[in-house]
Parts: sequence; C-alpha cells; structure tokens
Amino acid sequence: MHAAAIVRAVWEGMEARDWESVRRLLADDLLVTWPQTRERIRGGDAFLELNRTYPGDWHIAVEEVLCDGDRAAARVTIVSGGDTFYVSGFYRVHEGRIAEATETFAEPGTPPYDRSHLAERY
Amino acid sequence: MHAAAIVRAVWEGMEARDWESVRRLLADDLLVTWPQTRERIRGGDAFLELNRTYPGDWHIAVEEVLCDGDRAAARVTIVSGGDTFYVSGFYRVHEGRIAEATETFAEPGTPPYDRSHLAERY
Repeated sequence: MHAAAIVRAVWEGMEARDWESVRRLLADDLLVTWPQTRERIRGGDAFLELNRTYPGDWHIAVEEVLCDGDRAAARVTIVSGGDTFYVSGFYRVHEGRIAEATETFAEPGTPPYDRSHLAERY
Repeated sequence: MHAAAIVRAVWEGMEARDWESVRRLLADDLLVTWPQTRERIRGGDAFLELNRTYPGDWHIAVEEVLCDGDRAAARVTIVSGGDTFYVSGFYRVHEGRIAEATETFAEPGTPPYDRSHLAERY
C-alpha cells in the first residue's frame, strides 16, 4: 500500500474500532506529535491505546488524503456528541507502517473581527 | 512551478508582505473555505485583501509542504504577538495558481483529560 492508503486505512480502521488492523499499520517505534498541547506519544501501542480509550462517541470522516512519496497528509472531520474537530495530519510511512505523525485538532468558532465584506458565512 | 512550490511561494510571499507576487499565484476565481468559522472567501482579490489587512504583527514559518499532482498540503506555524496558530492548508492548483483551498487554524491548549501515562509533554 502507498502512504495515502495506509493513512486512510488507519483512520477508517479507528472509525470501525478495528484495533487489530490499525495496530498492524503503526510502527512499533511510532512518534506522534500534537503541537497544540505539546504532547508526544511514543510507540504504536501507546498511540493505539490513546485512541481506543479516547472519551466520547466519536465518529470519523476522511475528507481527503494526499500522497507525496513516503509522506501523506490527511484532512479529517471528527464529530463527538455536539463537538466537531477539523483534524489535519501529516505522516511519514516506513515499510508499510506510519512511523511519524504530526496532528492538529481545530475547533469551531466565530470570526475574531469583522471581515464580512471579504468573507461570507455558510 | 509544481503545486507545492506555488503554495510555499504564497505563504513565503505573505511573510515578506510581497502582495504583488502573492496575487499572481492566486486564481481570479479562487475559492477558500475556513470550516471553523464557516467562512468562504471568493476571489484572489478578496483573499489577498483579507491577508493583507489581517490584524497583528504576524509571522509565518512554513514547516512542510506535500505535493500530489495538482494538489498540495502545507503545515505552517503563525506567531502573532503572544499567540500561536498551527495552520494546515489543503490546496488545488490550476494553471500555475491556487484555485481552491481549505485551511484550519489550531490553537494551543491543555489536554482535555489525563492521558499522561500515554503522552509526554514537551
């Protein structure tokens, strides 16, 4: 599988709660960085457990995945109860597994100043 | 220029406040979507003006750009005063200009629950 297919399979496997399949696509020495909270998750086991036990009845929709050699980028929407997260992930794949990831989780809000002459709301 | 080079040149041109160069890399009928605020910006002129007049003394660092045919994805950090934004953008390029973009702006925060047995802070 190329990098984009692996990244898509991980997100879709999490939505399916198919934890065994997800684990096989994560490197044992995976390093995940979440810059917003300055957190690092080391190892496929820890990252799997963090996702498996993440609170809430969350659901994942993969919007698009780009592939650039051994790298991929994914745009994902997660809905959990009344909360929505616009997730972006940048990944490096090695030997068929995700080896590195940097993920951000953007939340809904209101425009921080009046720019309605340039931007329409939908 | 391929899609990644165009996207990088737009971000770096904004950091340089080189508005003429940036404008040449935006399609006249550019469509930008900011899902967090449910805003759409239509047209290269409007998008340029929105960035040109964006409040604050903001500075842009391009962390990585991926290229997948006519699409690209960029991971960017913006620092403005004491604020940091972890920006992700997904782009489609047509005839040497950005034609479509979806961008998110993730902000720093604290972990929403205790997961310190799985994630270290840095």
